[in-house]
Amino acid sequence: MRDFSQDTRWLSINTATVRKQRGVDWPLLDILDACAARGIRTVAPWRDQVAAAGLKATAQRLREHGMALSGYCRGGMFTYTHTPIDSARRKAVRDENRRALDEACTLSAPCLVLVVGGLPGALAGKAEHRDIAGARAQVTEGIAALLQDARERGMPLAIEPLHPMYAADRACINTLEQALDVCDLLDPQRSGALGVAVDVYHLWWDPKLQQQIERAGRSRLLAFHVCDWLTPTTDLLNDRGMMGDGVIDIPRIRGWVEAQGFAGCSEVEIFSAANWWQRDGGEVLDTCVDRHRRCV
Amino acid sequence: MRDFSQDTRWLSINTATVRKQRGVDWPLLDILDACAARGIRTVAPWRDQVAAAGLKATAQRLREHGMALSGYCRGGMFTYTHTPIDSARRKAVRDENRRALDEACTLSAPCLVLVVGGLPGALAGKAEHRDIAGARAQVTEGIAALLQDARERGMPLAIEPLHPMYAADRACINTLEQALDVCDLLDPQRSGALGVAVDVYHLWWDPKLQQQIERAGRSRLLAFHVCDWLTPTTDLLNDRGMMGDGVIDIPRIRGWVEAQGFAGCSEVEIFSAANWWQRDGGEVLDTCVDRHRRCV
Repeated sequence: MRDFSQDTRWLSINTATVRKQRGVDWPLLDILDACAARGIRTVAPWRDQVAAAGLKATAQRLREHGMALSGYCRGGMFTYTHTPIDSARRKAVRDENRRALDEACTLSAPCLVLVVGGLPGALAGKAEHRDIAGARAQVTEGIAALLQDARERGMPLAIEPLHPMYAADRACINTLEQALDVCDLLDPQRSGALGVAVDVYHLWWDPKLQQQIERAGRSRLLAFHVCDWLTPTTDLLNDRGMMGDGVIDIPRIRGWVEAQGFAGCSEVEIFSAANWWQRDGGEVLDTCVDRHRRCV
Repeated sequence: MRDFSQDTRWLSINTATVRKQRGVDWPLLDILDACAARGIRTVAPWRDQVAAAGLKATAQRLREHGMALSGYCRGGMFTYTHTPIDSARRKAVRDENRRALDEACTLSAPCLVLVVGGLPGALAGKAEHRDIAGARAQVTEGIAALLQDARERGMPLAIEPLHPMYAADRACINTLEQALDVCDLLDPQRSGALGVAVDVYHLWWDPKLQQQIERAGRSRLLAFHVCDWLTPTTDLLNDRGMMGDGVIDIPRIRGWVEAQGFAGCSEVEIFSAANWWQRDGGEVLDTCVDRHRRCV
């Protein structure tokens, strides 16, 4: 297992971690500068942040700093209903996902991360049906179609299984086993075009996690995300913890991933409305550097 | 599948659903009276409510109303550390679980429901370690030991897998598959002494749920709990929904359970600090009766 205690080479910052500090958006280009100033060479930006900064300006700033991406956030949201409105929405999602792929190519991302969507309407508080099996079938279809676009562009897709508490409204792929079943169905040859993002926050609880990481193997392990699970957790979405502040045995899980040959970054992705988003962004980045050395 | 639309024969009320209304404890004997007045013949009381009412008085009131239990809540909490304090705690838990078994016998419960415990200390906000695999091994040991006591008393144990969001602090058995693995290990002969409580709130999201219910079969299906998953869910513990108000396809899951020959009650267990616990208890019970007919 790699020794992280002396350097930040394998630290990546998911830019949602410092998206908005004390209520003020932190512009992406400034985030990149702040990362570079701390020796952080890898980031994972979100599409809306890139759009606000400009795609070309983002690519240029990354080049200036010699920075790389550990992933691009995000595509997905494949679920829909069979109403005419949703038929249009479905086409719009397909187009949107193609644009995400193109942006990922422009930024030389190693993969486009997919959050696959839940029950249509649920995120807005009004689910249009309760057929989660049907939603899952739509997700498989949606990934199959996008996989063609991804192959044409040479941009791998990383399915991110989300914690089961997001099954209704954000992603109905909720275990690594389930994500790998989709990978095996759509890319049985393990071409490298389709894999998974392993986020310890979503998957740490799973008694089959080690087994499924071994099943994934190097060819499917496209990204590794870290933060921590707090006790108590006071909000389902925005109460993630800094590594070391919670109950996840992150080094153990990293050991499993590295035993498969994964040699990429540990990407820090923390949504924390009441704590880390209320601090100075530089302090948050400094803490990420420190915790990456000691707790990841 | 049984038709619930015309009667409440198969409705059970978990008494936590009306434990404290508008800040005032509703005494268990009064809850029993209120259930009986509505034709509800089955309940699942909690130990603290029984203790407050008195075990004998509870048993007597149940007899007077001709009421039965669908389960007794609860035993478990098997995890511990290796400190001297915890060694004492471990013995205390064992004794407590035996008392729970005895109470369940006195009340003629069909099973004692087990919430197995998470990482020691986590429920108080200070986990003593991060070794969830170790905690799971302790749970298996603890159930094995309690199973002897349970067999002596002829009182079945029902392992309740809790939602993965409770893995840290309440129960580190989080899928039906995992619970059944424990059952198969400790009771391979399917003696009836060990099984599971299937709660749709905890398990609805699981893509393997139908498969695992089929694996469980009649002999392992000891209890069936219902409520609903709200979008959004605003609290990890106390924001459960009334059946029909959320996204769970309860009839579909009940169909899977009944296809295995389960013919017991649908036990309504709703923790709802901001909504149902703020209403008149009688109104809550009336709503349970109505929703049981239409949405379960």
